[in-house]
Amino acid sequence: MNTYLTIDPWKLMEQGFHPEHQMVTESLFSLGNGRFGQRGCFEETYTGKTLQGNYLAGVYYPDKTRVGWWKNGYPEYFAKVLNAIDWSSLRISMEGEEVDLHQATCESFYRELDMKRGVLSRQCDLKLVNGDRISIASERYCHAEYPDLGILRYQIRIREGKGTLAVQSYLDLDVQNQDANWEEKFWEDGQTQMDGQTAVVSAYTRKTRFRAAAAMVNQLSLNGTILDLDPFRVQRDKYVELGYELDVEAGDEIILTKMVSMSSTLYYDETRLPAEMMTRVEEARLKGYSALLKAHEDHWARKWQEADIVIDGDLSAQQAIRFNIFQLYQTYTGDDDRLNIGPKGFTGEKYGGSTYWDTEAYCLPFYLATASPQVARQLLLYRHRQLPQAIANARKLGFSGGAALFPMVTMNGEECHNEWEITFEEIHRNGAIAYAIHDYVRYTGDRDYLWSHGLEVLIAISRFWAQRVHWSSPQQRYVMHGVTGPNEYENNVNNNWYTLYIARWCLTYTRDVIHELKSQDPKAWLQLADQLKFYEHTELRQWQEIVDFLYLPEDKELGIFLQQDGYLEKEQALADSIPADQRPLNEHWSWDRILRSCFIKQADVLQGFYFFEEDFDLDQLRRNYQYYEPRTVHESSLSPCVHAILACSLDEDEKAYEMMMRTARLDLDNINNDTKDGCHITSMAGTWMAVVKGFGGMRVRDDQVGFSPRLPEAWSGLNFRVRWRGRSLEIAFDRQEIRMTLLEGAPLPVRCYEEVYSLSDEIRVRFRSPNGPSPGAEH
Amino acid sequence: MNTYLTIDPWKLMEQGFHPEHQMVTESLFSLGNGRFGQRGCFEETYTGKTLQGNYLAGVYYPDKTRVGWWKNGYPEYFAKVLNAIDWSSLRISMEGEEVDLHQATCESFYRELDMKRGVLSRQCDLKLVNGDRISIASERYCHAEYPDLGILRYQIRIREGKGTLAVQSYLDLDVQNQDANWEEKFWEDGQTQMDGQTAVVSAYTRKTRFRAAAAMVNQLSLNGTILDLDPFRVQRDKYVELGYELDVEAGDEIILTKMVSMSSTLYYDETRLPAEMMTRVEEARLKGYSALLKAHEDHWARKWQEADIVIDGDLSAQQAIRFNIFQLYQTYTGDDDRLNIGPKGFTGEKYGGSTYWDTEAYCLPFYLATASPQVARQLLLYRHRQLPQAIANARKLGFSGGAALFPMVTMNGEECHNEWEITFEEIHRNGAIAYAIHDYVRYTGDRDYLWSHGLEVLIAISRFWAQRVHWSSPQQRYVMHGVTGPNEYENNVNNNWYTLYIARWCLTYTRDVIHELKSQDPKAWLQLADQLKFYEHTELRQWQEIVDFLYLPEDKELGIFLQQDGYLEKEQALADSIPADQRPLNEHWSWDRILRSCFIKQADVLQGFYFFEEDFDLDQLRRNYQYYEPRTVHESSLSPCVHAILACSLDEDEKAYEMMMRTARLDLDNINNDTKDGCHITSMAGTWMAVVKGFGGMRVRDDQVGFSPRLPEAWSGLNFRVRWRGRSLEIAFDRQEIRMTLLEGAPLPVRCYEEVYSLSDEIRVRFRSPNGPSPGAEH
Repeated sequence: MNTYLTIDPWKLMEQGFHPEHQMVTESLFSLGNGRFGQRGCFEETYTGKTLQGNYLAGVYYPDKTRVGWWKNGYPEYFAKVLNAIDWSSLRISMEGEEVDLHQATCESFYRELDMKRGVLSRQCDLKLVNGDRISIASERYCHAEYPDLGILRYQIRIREGKGTLAVQSYLDLDVQNQDANWEEKFWEDGQTQMDGQTAVVSAYTRKTRFRAAAAMVNQLSLNGTILDLDPFRVQRDKYVELGYELDVEAGDEIILTKMVSMSSTLYYDETRLPAEMMTRVEEARLKGYSALLKAHEDHWARKWQEADIVIDGDLSAQQAIRFNIFQLYQTYTGDDDRLNIGPKGFTGEKYGGSTYWDTEAYCLPFYLATASPQVARQLLLYRHRQLPQAIANARKLGFSGGAALFPMVTMNGEECHNEWEITFEEIHRNGAIAYAIHDYVRYTGDRDYLWSHGLEVLIAISRFWAQRVHWSSPQQRYVMHGVTGPNEYENNVNNNWYTLYIARWCLTYTRDVIHELKSQDPKAWLQLADQLKFYEHTELRQWQEIVDFLYLPEDKELGIFLQQDGYLEKEQALADSIPADQRPLNEHWSWDRILRSCFIKQADVLQGFYFFEEDFDLDQLRRNYQYYEPRTVHESSLSPCVHAILACSLDEDEKAYEMMMRTARLDLDNINNDTKDGCHITSMAGTWMAVVKGFGGMRVRDDQVGFSPRLPEAWSGLNFRVRWRGRSLEIAFDRQEIRMTLLEGAPLPVRCYEEVYSLSDEIRVRFRSPNGPSPGAEH
Repeated sequence: MNTYLTIDPWKLMEQGFHPEHQMVTESLFSLGNGRFGQRGCFEETYTGKTLQGNYLAGVYYPDKTRVGWWKNGYPEYFAKVLNAIDWSSLRISMEGEEVDLHQATCESFYRELDMKRGVLSRQCDLKLVNGDRISIASERYCHAEYPDLGILRYQIRIREGKGTLAVQSYLDLDVQNQDANWEEKFWEDGQTQMDGQTAVVSAYTRKTRFRAAAAMVNQLSLNGTILDLDPFRVQRDKYVELGYELDVEAGDEIILTKMVSMSSTLYYDETRLPAEMMTRVEEARLKGYSALLKAHEDHWARKWQEADIVIDGDLSAQQAIRFNIFQLYQTYTGDDDRLNIGPKGFTGEKYGGSTYWDTEAYCLPFYLATASPQVARQLLLYRHRQLPQAIANARKLGFSGGAALFPMVTMNGEECHNEWEITFEEIHRNGAIAYAIHDYVRYTGDRDYLWSHGLEVLIAISRFWAQRVHWSSPQQRYVMHGVTGPNEYENNVNNNWYTLYIARWCLTYTRDVIHELKSQDPKAWLQLADQLKFYEHTELRQWQEIVDFLYLPEDKELGIFLQQDGYLEKEQALADSIPADQRPLNEHWSWDRILRSCFIKQADVLQGFYFFEEDFDLDQLRRNYQYYEPRTVHESSLSPCVHAILACSLDEDEKAYEMMMRTARLDLDNINNDTKDGCHITSMAGTWMAVVKGFGGMRVRDDQVGFSPRLPEAWSGLNFRVRWRGRSLEIAFDRQEIRMTLLEGAPLPVRCYEEVYSLSDEIRVRFRSPNGPSPGAEH
């Protein structure tokens, strides 16, 4: 666990250099603006352990699949987020010695990520190997308001020594992915152009032929005076550099301002892209550093105004929840339906493709509550755009008639994963995609999306379920064989309860939506049915058959649903019986042993309880929670948040707090010892859910929003805002009182605990601790 | 299916060149002598499709594992048979044009593999692009008697044209494996040396540091006169060449005799290896071509004397059975317990490692019956040698106390495979290794091996089974979860009947052997128990518990054993309902669809009936066969032979014939369309079993050997020889009579059908066709 970062409500702070954590720090201090992002690497050369990572949203490379043993149906390639333009790097040399924190002596060091402003900065005093002493102060950010811009201000102060200072500022597209199946470089056909203090580089991705370009303009000042130096120019394939040399002595202060504009053919015409980048960066130069910084800070201020959560009495949680929100908005801003939320965002290469079911199951609620409904709608449109590929994917696996299986991992709609037990069998993802449509509609009330796009997706998914089950003669029930549930520590099982349940729900929901459209706009339905060749009578009848006769494994004696057939025949043990030195299991046990054990990676049956809690009573939840949670090792970052929310429902606040903190500080404390690979971006939305749905108790039911606030012992108060059907609400509470304020929009009914209040301005309700006094309106 | 090769009892013959089948022909025409082998490539340059393959027994490279997704417990590397010294290649040029059948016009072509003599030869008339006409006649073999020697005689006759003929004879160790995970070359540190007409090359394998070397001596004659030419010499890293140029004209006949000695540090001291090869090849030169050829032919004649099978009335079957026997003896001769039988032998790179359970389950019976017991014993010793690695492998997977899991694929005892569902779960292989000990002992009566080596292996395997099961509370039985049976079209199933059955058998057999040793040599047992830390009382008691309470799935109503839990809940269909254009399934269906289907790759429950037929009555066999065989797609080369034998037991002779021919001509007719990768060497032993155990009805029971001859419609007679406890027997029969002859050894009781006869010379018994008259001794 990391303890080297200072706890602060708004900042991550590294006081004193910790090279042993550099890879982790780089991940945590990552920057992004939805369009591009980068790890928090040093600007100047660093020969210690580092992972240079710069990523452009939506730009990917289809890396040819490389597996030990090919299985029929595997995708030909795995689309990967690409390491792209290294735009913020410099080379600084003093008297011929290249400045490098791995070589120099660090006399003082301070680095911070200011989440309020979205700015990464660093100050350090160095003694070079040659004896010279310099100080560095850098500040950089990915512009939130002008999402093509990356800005760096880099100050060098000479403290001891004199001689030639060389400053080489470059743009490098000749970069390689660490994760490349065939050790290829993914960029080709580089072009460069230089002119005065500006330079531009561009290149194409192999195969996909995305073009990316970056232009930079550099300004150098000495002791406050802007220098008009003619730079040395280096132009190579996919690389441009502007170099400056000046004679300096102790006391001199040199500031390099580097402004970079970068983008891709997702946003600009291919042939004009380099010129456009030149124009953008020139516009930036004219705006000037201060104005740019202010626009950036203002943007973040507005974002925080909407999305911030204030936790009283628990700095560690406060820092963590802001870090989670900050990273989510650095990763995805929702202005482009071709983009999605990669599990590592812009913080690392791992997991390659960008889109998992995490988006629908975890991220969607966050964006629904903290941004315009357009943002969540983009996420749904993303899947709708990719429906043809999902249908093609299902066809490849032997399904027909417009059935769709959305991929487990994707960039462009095509499946990218290649473990048969996941790729072909972890099909519950289809259910989450359907559920997200339902979630969106009940949250926003936007039926327009449902008719115009959603229903098409729902029908394709339902058609998949209808073919994926089969009739079991011995059971006299429809069953579903060969699946992997959310608990990936079981593979290829029969009758995973969660998958069956969400499949059944999906069939009934799709049917209901069809009936609704039919009654409201029969012509539109006829047109859609015709377009989809939907045989209404036979298909709906078949679905109903399946709904009526679907097998759902349960154990009546224990009063629990069975994770899958035969789960109880496993050797039973509780997770706390596992010796500490064997945790996490996935690093210590062989795969077969994990599979044979009863231990559960993440919520599986309980994921169903989370999604469909209204279908069950508290006793059912308690029995299932008490059975499964103690068998759960939470080795997925997506596990603790769901358990935190359920624990809140069961008045197990301390357990909920423990779980919430585990997801909230997963990366900050490097709990799974893998933050070096990047941050767990999608599970960060789970933190938000654990706070707002867990302790805030937010629920949408019967077209009403409501809250059931509770506080863990460590907290004295909680304050958050949510959007809800055109309104903006603030919920603030401490152990005395809940204050619900309508910040914006028309009056509305709001539930607090079990009571419904009419909220037009502000309502105050007495806080009810579990087993405490019952609530009452006081306003 | 191939129809381009002529059917002949002793030869494979290609009449007219079929470049479209060249890769298949290369596999089929492979040569080997147990120590090295090679694909039947052309000697001179061929720029058409070809796979150069030369392999040295026991020389392997640990290729670093490359998988899409790492699973805990995977081995770090996959030991691969290496492409080694290309010793038989030449470059021939006429007037500067390199002779190449892909460029030249083939005016006539004949190629044959003479299995009787073990010689590959070719005659062809070519018209070169430059208009010259030449004829080539080549003859080569891997010497069976002197297993370091490869011999080539290559004749060129000028038919039209005159000018310079260049003959370049080389040894090339600068070769690469097609199958290399990281595109590396596996040979390094080459050394060369040349002297007169001889040259030697050597190199080391990376990591494993095997050294291999080859020396050649060339002799050139023109029109019968040996030439004393000083060759041009080319020496490169890992490559030596002797080149000759001579002026020729129409009518000239040039013969190159190339003798090569090659071996590795498995057989020679590392530093002396190149010099030894020089010595060996010089000895060969002194022996001369004719004497060498005669020794080679004599060796094969003796082999055929022992191992031949004569089938009357069915040339296609006759050719096939000889091809199978021939390839088996080219691959493995049983003089070294470090060697084993690779699934492709020396005929291709595929499947990398050399040893699978095929050896124990399929090959052992063949070698037991056709060679000295020493040969089969070597195969058992091989596993005993590797017991420490098998124990280490089990430990890696979480087992303790001396439990052993033998690898699925191996060269040196370490696991080389990396599909979790196979590597970790296809554990029935452990059972086959135990069964082979039993099979060997009952066949040879060699209890000495049992006490000195076998029991140690048995105990380690039994310990594995005892830990691999667990107690199921709901079942009140021991169960075994997460296994893959012989039918690899089901993965990660619970309670595979075959695996459970062989595990239970293994526990009882080991117990019986312990009791036997204890009563016969209590001191030896105490010593062994002490050495193995065997807690006799507790371990045997635990085993007995498991034996008594082991769950064995069956369906009483259908009267069948269940392949695994839930098999009957699958959608049931018969294999003949699969459209022809979807066969084989493994090329047309996605993996999950195959897994979910009821279709069976190869004998699974029926493999148990094959091994343990005495445990069941014919009705049980019939019910299980009639249930499972129609659901079996026989997409493993190991499937048809087992079914052929069982079909014989059920009087289904025509089905048995169909199955037998499917395995017998699998490669000759390229039935699975994969012979280009190499021949299915291990399944060839299955062909022998199908003939001798199926139609010959050979069984060993109660220390007696017996036969129950039958003939498929296509055959008029069958004749085979078997060794049996120091005797050599010939069994010959037609539709009238069975003649059992004792060729060698003391008189013995022999069963024929149900009667036991005392055989001292010859016995004749009336042939009994199914439902025909009962037999009687006539002699």
